[in-house]
Amino acid sequence: MYRSHTCGELRKEHINKEVTLSGWVQKVRDKGFMVWVDVRDRYGITQLIFDEERTPNGVLETAQRLGREFVIQVDGTVIERESKNANIPTGTIEVLVKNITVLNESKTPPFTIENETDGGDDLRMKYRYLDIRRNPVKNSLIFRHKVGIEVRNYLSNEGFIEVETPYLIKSTPEGARDFVVPSRMNEGQFYALPQSPQTFKQLLMVGGMDKYFQIVKCFRDEDLRADRQPEFTQIDCEMAFVEQEDILNVFEGLTRHLLKEIKGIDITNFPRITYDEAMRKYGNDKPDIRFGMEFGELNEVAQHKDFKVFNDAELVVGIAVPGAASYTRKEIDKLIDWVKRPQVGALGMVYVKCNEDGSFKSSVDKFYNEDDLKKWAEATNAKAGDLICVLSGVANKTRAQLSALRMEMAERLGLRKADEFAPLWVLDFPLLEWDEETACYHAMHHPFTSPKPEDVKLLDTEPGNVRANAYDLVLNGNEIGGGSIRIHDKDLQALMFKHLGFTEEEAKAQFGFLMDAFQYGAPPHGGLAFGFDRLVAILGGQETIRDFIAFPKNNSGRDVMIDAPAKIDEEQLKELHIKLNL
Amino acid sequence: MYRSHTCGELRKEHINKEVTLSGWVQKVRDKGFMVWVDVRDRYGITQLIFDEERTPNGVLETAQRLGREFVIQVDGTVIERESKNANIPTGTIEVLVKNITVLNESKTPPFTIENETDGGDDLRMKYRYLDIRRNPVKNSLIFRHKVGIEVRNYLSNEGFIEVETPYLIKSTPEGARDFVVPSRMNEGQFYALPQSPQTFKQLLMVGGMDKYFQIVKCFRDEDLRADRQPEFTQIDCEMAFVEQEDILNVFEGLTRHLLKEIKGIDITNFPRITYDEAMRKYGNDKPDIRFGMEFGELNEVAQHKDFKVFNDAELVVGIAVPGAASYTRKEIDKLIDWVKRPQVGALGMVYVKCNEDGSFKSSVDKFYNEDDLKKWAEATNAKAGDLICVLSGVANKTRAQLSALRMEMAERLGLRKADEFAPLWVLDFPLLEWDEETACYHAMHHPFTSPKPEDVKLLDTEPGNVRANAYDLVLNGNEIGGGSIRIHDKDLQALMFKHLGFTEEEAKAQFGFLMDAFQYGAPPHGGLAFGFDRLVAILGGQETIRDFIAFPKNNSGRDVMIDAPAKIDEEQLKELHIKLNL
Repeated sequence: MYRSHTCGELRKEHINKEVTLSGWVQKVRDKGFMVWVDVRDRYGITQLIFDEERTPNGVLETAQRLGREFVIQVDGTVIERESKNANIPTGTIEVLVKNITVLNESKTPPFTIENETDGGDDLRMKYRYLDIRRNPVKNSLIFRHKVGIEVRNYLSNEGFIEVETPYLIKSTPEGARDFVVPSRMNEGQFYALPQSPQTFKQLLMVGGMDKYFQIVKCFRDEDLRADRQPEFTQIDCEMAFVEQEDILNVFEGLTRHLLKEIKGIDITNFPRITYDEAMRKYGNDKPDIRFGMEFGELNEVAQHKDFKVFNDAELVVGIAVPGAASYTRKEIDKLIDWVKRPQVGALGMVYVKCNEDGSFKSSVDKFYNEDDLKKWAEATNAKAGDLICVLSGVANKTRAQLSALRMEMAERLGLRKADEFAPLWVLDFPLLEWDEETACYHAMHHPFTSPKPEDVKLLDTEPGNVRANAYDLVLNGNEIGGGSIRIHDKDLQALMFKHLGFTEEEAKAQFGFLMDAFQYGAPPHGGLAFGFDRLVAILGGQETIRDFIAFPKNNSGRDVMIDAPAKIDEEQLKELHIKLNL
Repeated sequence: MYRSHTCGELRKEHINKEVTLSGWVQKVRDKGFMVWVDVRDRYGITQLIFDEERTPNGVLETAQRLGREFVIQVDGTVIERESKNANIPTGTIEVLVKNITVLNESKTPPFTIENETDGGDDLRMKYRYLDIRRNPVKNSLIFRHKVGIEVRNYLSNEGFIEVETPYLIKSTPEGARDFVVPSRMNEGQFYALPQSPQTFKQLLMVGGMDKYFQIVKCFRDEDLRADRQPEFTQIDCEMAFVEQEDILNVFEGLTRHLLKEIKGIDITNFPRITYDEAMRKYGNDKPDIRFGMEFGELNEVAQHKDFKVFNDAELVVGIAVPGAASYTRKEIDKLIDWVKRPQVGALGMVYVKCNEDGSFKSSVDKFYNEDDLKKWAEATNAKAGDLICVLSGVANKTRAQLSALRMEMAERLGLRKADEFAPLWVLDFPLLEWDEETACYHAMHHPFTSPKPEDVKLLDTEPGNVRANAYDLVLNGNEIGGGSIRIHDKDLQALMFKHLGFTEEEAKAQFGFLMDAFQYGAPPHGGLAFGFDRLVAILGGQETIRDFIAFPKNNSGRDVMIDAPAKIDEEQLKELHIKLNL
């Protein structure tokens, strides 16, 4: 038996108990006649004490030869610690060691195994197995496990069945690039790894498995941006015999359950807004509503004066930044530079200081008087002390710019609190999206997404205004889930394909087996998928997903620890009926 | 709202309630003035009734036009049924329909959606989404889900953390063939899909995550035998700071938990036998111990008489088949033919009938007297009425032949009861396995498996007799799990590589990153993996895994429903830096 207790378990009530501990050497303090060793495992750290008087011959000497990250096993007696350490749960005791075994030695690790390490990202990834010993990474992985268990228990209790769908499927030309797998047994043919189990979950609905979920790996061979992985995990769900409202209720319930069980937070407010409203109020389809700064549209009150910039603009829109009226001229100039950066792209910014005495000071005082500015303050809901920031131009772009500014100001003001959670449904996404490149409409979600029945008549005349029964779940400014009600009526599906520019043959070639299945009694159905990596990171109060993934890949899609991908044998290529084409 | 209740929910207490049901049409019985429709969903079947007197205009006519598998929604009143159907839980009621909507029509399905279908395997696989509507398949998938939930809850409660390991990893020349994935971003290089997360779980142990598990897909590009899938699911587990005993206890606990929670069975007996004992007693390293018929070795009592066949044999061994003394001469001849089939391969069989009066009648009466045969009966534990079947020859082969006979007789006698569960640990597997082809020893489990400390000294002299700290969990004659204690000492590992015929360079090339990791403080560790598909099938009392997999592949590795694998575009190949080599 390697241990009677873990290194995080011993307390005052264990004093005088004989114990056996195993773990890694965190730290050795050697005073010659006395040695203290901190031993660490997954559960914590316990201080060991060795001294000339009480420790048997040889044992103290072994302790003195220990290096960082050596694996040891000790037998000893729990004693009260003289100088308590209130920072760790085991801080009131120490173990007086009688016997020590070095289970394994360790080379000096390439970085410190501490909460704050001296190792850079590359080194940490190469030695990920050492990085995982560090609390921040270890705790993130344990946290991920807990979220997974809660998701499964909630959905299982709601009658959902986890069904495993295949990983070796068929490549489809739609959407992102597939990873493919050459088949040895089927010469010249390839499997594809799933980008999502979308078609399989719809087939399960046709199969009558009316509440399906799966926590499942998905694969996209896309050029990687920061914080995106070629393989990622999804909570994939689908329900049959449901309307949108039923789906929203179930997954609102899941979100509440997770926040309650994982974070101890009762969510009182779970608002729903439409896509249009999200764009008008926040310039963003995934608004962070932990703070205000809602957009105030100023066309009515700011146009038709002598300020040409505004008069020419499609949209004049502003936000009131709380407390920022105290910004100096220099600070404001810097802010104007910020909105003019290419990443934001505004041509300029008009500002109004709402002074504490109720007066205003703006950058456009020669065009607008106090009464005018008072109306601006009303439209942006500005209070005394606020700074109104106003952008103008083409509506969509201006909204996006102001959204960037809103997020930036919230960040600066500390309004994006990691321990505050504000979920939100965004509903009624547009069904179609105009693609400049191909000059035609594409399905915003996917071609099986159902339009709102009352909007079907607009498909011919105003396709861009047709709303879908599609919804996103947003948490703290991040889209954590999205889905839709699917089309189950074959006439409507045919109409959709027509509007997406598919001929009947093309539709059949691409979606044949699903369309076949739909001829045998497809029930009304819909669902959604959560990005599990992102969800876990946000619940964990983190911005990036990387430490919530045990073995992530870098931005070139490489695993630098195992050095993959890698070359394979000629023999192997031959068996797979392929050769390199470099 | 599509339904107020499911089709399996309504009972006597719902009588007079207004309800809405949705589901598929199972059956229509049309008597002209009266129509009964069975409507079915995941939860059951409810009888609907329509009649001229009570059903509104048009509704009866719609019911008359319904076809099998149409999707309908009905509103109606629950009424007491005149002729009750005791076979279904809803059999005391029916719903008098007021309103019907056809949600979707269906073509006539290619096979009947009944417990016993008229569809053959191929048709069922092609239309798997219809097959899943059938109770046997649907219930198998739901059963699988339940087992998964119980596995996760048990391990989670035991402190195990589910960690997702990557699917895009590195190809290794060891073991079975890998499926590979060409990398677009890393020209000429390939990922491999994992055959198991073996190295990653060992890295997690180095990383201090001392209790890991994962229910995970694994991939092997092997020529498929019946009931083997190219992608399969494993319950993968690993623990650090444990000895074999700790691991056995945890997974004995898991097995007991599953049998209790899933089957309601308390396992009183969970025996452990060694590999050697299993081979001697059952001729098999995964014996079915739901029944006896243990081997009796007869060398001592059957050799040194005048029967040359036995005298020349390395092993003479028999079993007592209960109650089979009543076999006719013809039946026994057929049995002898059976053991002589090439699949079994025995040259002949000697038999002894143990008559009810205590006398014996054997096929070798001219060589053996009653006293001799009495000793055979003692050695095989035969009772009056049993038939002793005796094989002889080279020990290993003869044991395998007798094992086949033992299983066959158990099958014929109905001793392999689907609702009886007899788990068993088989311990102390040989470390090495002689490979005729390469004329050298191979690791039986994998090269990181630890030999028994007391056997290390035999590595040089009797490598074939070195036992490993390796164990299999056997349930009803199936290996459902297997694992080992791993080597964590680098000197022992070097010794092992030497004995497996690796040079230092070869070992480094193949297992480099794991060996690197082991230099930084690898703890003692070990683990095991369960075949989840098989485990679920056995718990479900089935012989084959196929119906416990939602979308299985056929023996050519094809998914005939989606028609995968398939050709991909030239363009796609080009991007992946490969071309076909047909």
